[in-house]
Amino acid sequence: MDIEDTLLMIPGPVKVASRVLRAMSKPMISHRSADFGNIYEDCILLIKELFDTENDVVVLSGSGTCGMEAAVGGIIRKDEKIVTVTNGKFGERFTELGDRYGTAIPLAFPWGTSFDLDRVEAALEEGAKAVAMVHNETSVGMINPAKEVGELARKHDALFIVDGISSVGGNEFLTDGWNIDIAITGSQKCIAVPPGLAMVSVSKKAEEMLEDGKGGYYTDLKAHLKSARKSPCQTPYTPAVSLFYALQEALHMAAEDGFPERRKRMGRLAEGVRQAAAALEIELFPQPGQRSAYSNTVTAMKMPQGISDDQLRGGMRKRGVVVSGGQADLKGKIFRIGTMGVCTESDVLRTIQTLELVLEKEGVISSLGAGVEAASKSIDA
Amino acid sequence: MDIEDTLLMIPGPVKVASRVLRAMSKPMISHRSADFGNIYEDCILLIKELFDTENDVVVLSGSGTCGMEAAVGGIIRKDEKIVTVTNGKFGERFTELGDRYGTAIPLAFPWGTSFDLDRVEAALEEGAKAVAMVHNETSVGMINPAKEVGELARKHDALFIVDGISSVGGNEFLTDGWNIDIAITGSQKCIAVPPGLAMVSVSKKAEEMLEDGKGGYYTDLKAHLKSARKSPCQTPYTPAVSLFYALQEALHMAAEDGFPERRKRMGRLAEGVRQAAAALEIELFPQPGQRSAYSNTVTAMKMPQGISDDQLRGGMRKRGVVVSGGQADLKGKIFRIGTMGVCTESDVLRTIQTLELVLEKEGVISSLGAGVEAASKSIDA
Repeated sequence: MDIEDTLLMIPGPVKVASRVLRAMSKPMISHRSADFGNIYEDCILLIKELFDTENDVVVLSGSGTCGMEAAVGGIIRKDEKIVTVTNGKFGERFTELGDRYGTAIPLAFPWGTSFDLDRVEAALEEGAKAVAMVHNETSVGMINPAKEVGELARKHDALFIVDGISSVGGNEFLTDGWNIDIAITGSQKCIAVPPGLAMVSVSKKAEEMLEDGKGGYYTDLKAHLKSARKSPCQTPYTPAVSLFYALQEALHMAAEDGFPERRKRMGRLAEGVRQAAAALEIELFPQPGQRSAYSNTVTAMKMPQGISDDQLRGGMRKRGVVVSGGQADLKGKIFRIGTMGVCTESDVLRTIQTLELVLEKEGVISSLGAGVEAASKSIDA
Repeated sequence: MDIEDTLLMIPGPVKVASRVLRAMSKPMISHRSADFGNIYEDCILLIKELFDTENDVVVLSGSGTCGMEAAVGGIIRKDEKIVTVTNGKFGERFTELGDRYGTAIPLAFPWGTSFDLDRVEAALEEGAKAVAMVHNETSVGMINPAKEVGELARKHDALFIVDGISSVGGNEFLTDGWNIDIAITGSQKCIAVPPGLAMVSVSKKAEEMLEDGKGGYYTDLKAHLKSARKSPCQTPYTPAVSLFYALQEALHMAAEDGFPERRKRMGRLAEGVRQAAAALEIELFPQPGQRSAYSNTVTAMKMPQGISDDQLRGGMRKRGVVVSGGQADLKGKIFRIGTMGVCTESDVLRTIQTLELVLEKEGVISSLGAGVEAASKSIDA
C-alpha cells in the first residue's frame, strides 16, 4: 500500500496535516535574519501557552531525547544525584542520562504500574539535586502523577524535570501549576509536526543552576536561552529552519482549534479506543490504580490470545493502518494505538475496523462490528 | 521583498531546489519501518561516495555542531588531550568542545591565515589522542591543508577529526585518502538540503575508541552505528524523517549531475566571484599562501572603503539578494558570498550585479558592469 493511502496511528511520529507539510515548501531563509527571529518568537509565545508556563522556552533542533539530555546534562554534574522514577522505556532513558552526567538513583516500578509515592519521598530524603519522570509513558500508555511528584520535589528542594514528550498538548499538563522546572516535548507528538524539534521550558531556579562550559554542548540550555533573548531571536547553532516553518503553522492550527479543545478531542478518541478494546475483549495493558490514569494520547493493549504480533500488526499494515508494537520485554506482548495531534474520529474508526477485520480473519473474533460500534458511540457521546 | 523572490547567497543554509522542498511534503512514516530503513540505507550509500570513504557513515538529526560534538565527545575523555588547529570561528568551536570533554591544546593562527605545519607537528609530539581541524573555514573562506595534517596525525598516532561541513561536496575531500578518522558535514551546505542533519563518517580505529556510556548521549556514535546496522536500518532516537526525504532527493539530484561535476561547478562559480571582486577592486580576505587555497564554496571579501556593512548588505537585501557578514571580530569588516549546492551561474551574476548597484549608489564605484563582465567571462570560460 502506498504511503499516501496509509494511516499512521503510532504514538509518534504522527500524521502531519497537509497545511503543515506545505509550510515546509517555503524557500530557505537565513537563520540569523529577522524573518527567522519572528518565526521563532511567535512559536515561543504559543509554546508557553501550550506548556501553561511563564518560564522561558527554547526550541532545540533534535528529537525529544535531545531535550531530555539538555535537561539532565544542564543540571547534573559528576558526583551529583538525580532520582529517576520509572515505569517504562522512556523513564529508563532518564536513568541512562543521569548516569552519563552524574549518578542516577533509579526508582524503577514494573512497566505500566503506578509510582509508589512513599518510595519517591524516601529517595528524595536521601538528598538529590533533581528528580526526573515521564508524564505520559508512551511505552505503556499511562499518565504518571506529575503534580504529586512535583509537590515532593518542592518539599525536598529538588529540581523537577518532566518528560512531557507524548503528553504536552494531549493530556492536561501544568508546567507552573505542578512546579516543573524543566519540561520537554517533541514536535512529532501532540503538535503533529514532523520529528526533529524539542521544546524545553526552563524555570528561573533551573536557569541559575546552569553553568558555562558544563554539560552537553549542542544541548547547552544556557547557550540556547542566551541566543533566544537576542534580537532577532536566534538559536546558538543552525536550526532546522523548515521544521520551524512547520512548527509555527501547526501551533497556529492548534490554537485555532483551541489547545483545550484539542486535548479534549484526543481524550475522546482514546476513550473510543478503550471502549472498542472492551467490546472486543482486549485487555488494556497499564494498571493505573488510584494515582495514575489511562493516557489520552496512546492506548496500550495486550496482544489477544490466538494471534501473533506479526499477524495483528502485519495484517493491519497490509490493510493500510500502521500501529505500534511493544518495546523491549513487551515486544510481541502488547500493541499500541496513538490518538495524538490531528488524528480524527474517522481515523480511529478505520483503525478499529481494520483491527476487527484482522482479528476475524485469524479467528480471534467471530463477527465484525462490535468494536466500531463501541468506539463510535463513545466518541460521539 | 517576499522570500519567494529573494536569492539566498549566504554560506549556508543555502537555497534548496523545489524538487527537494517537495520531497518533504510526503506523508509521515514510522521511523522504525522498512520504508524509513530503505531511505536511510540509500542515503548512506550515496554519502559514502560523497565522502570518498569505505568507512561507516551515520546521519544525526541535528546541525553540523551536533556532528562535531559526536566526534569530540565520542573520542576525548576527561584528562585526554586534543590538538585543535584553528584559523576561524568554526575551528574555535573544536577548542570549546575539546575543553568540554577533556583538554584542548589550541593552536590558533590568525583568522584567514595558513596553518604552520611545524607547529602542528610540535603540538602532536607532546602527545595527544586526536587532532581536529576545519577543512573549509566558512568564517574566512579558506581551505586548510587536511592532507598534510592527516599525514602528521598518522605519524604521531593521533586520531584525525575533520569538520567538512561547508566543504564536502564542494571542495575535493578525500576521507580515506587523507586518513580522516571522523569526518563531518551538514545538510544545509553543499548538498543543499534544509538544515537539521549532520553526516558523520567513522573509521574502524575511531570506532574502537568509542565506549559504552561515555561522551554525549544524543550524539553517541556507538549507539548510532549500532542502530544503523540493524535491519531495517535505524537511528537510536527519532530521526527528522522529513529531512531524510529531502536528503535522499538531494543526494540523487547531485548524483545525477555527478559529484565531481557539482564540485567543479561550485569552483567555477567561486572563481567567478573572485574575478568580479578583482574587477571591482575588492580585496579578498584570506591569505592562503602556499599550503591553503581559496574556497570553492564561500568567498570572503574585505568591506570596501566608503561603505558600511549595513549599507552593503542592507542595500543588497533590499534588492532581494542576501549575503553574509563577518563573524566575531570580523563583523563589519568582511562580507561573504556562498556558492554552494544548487547555486547557478545566473544566481552569481544577479548577486554581482546587485553588489555593483549598491556600490555605485554609495559612490564606491562610478560605473556599472565590470564585475558582471569579469564573473561572466570567468564562469563561462
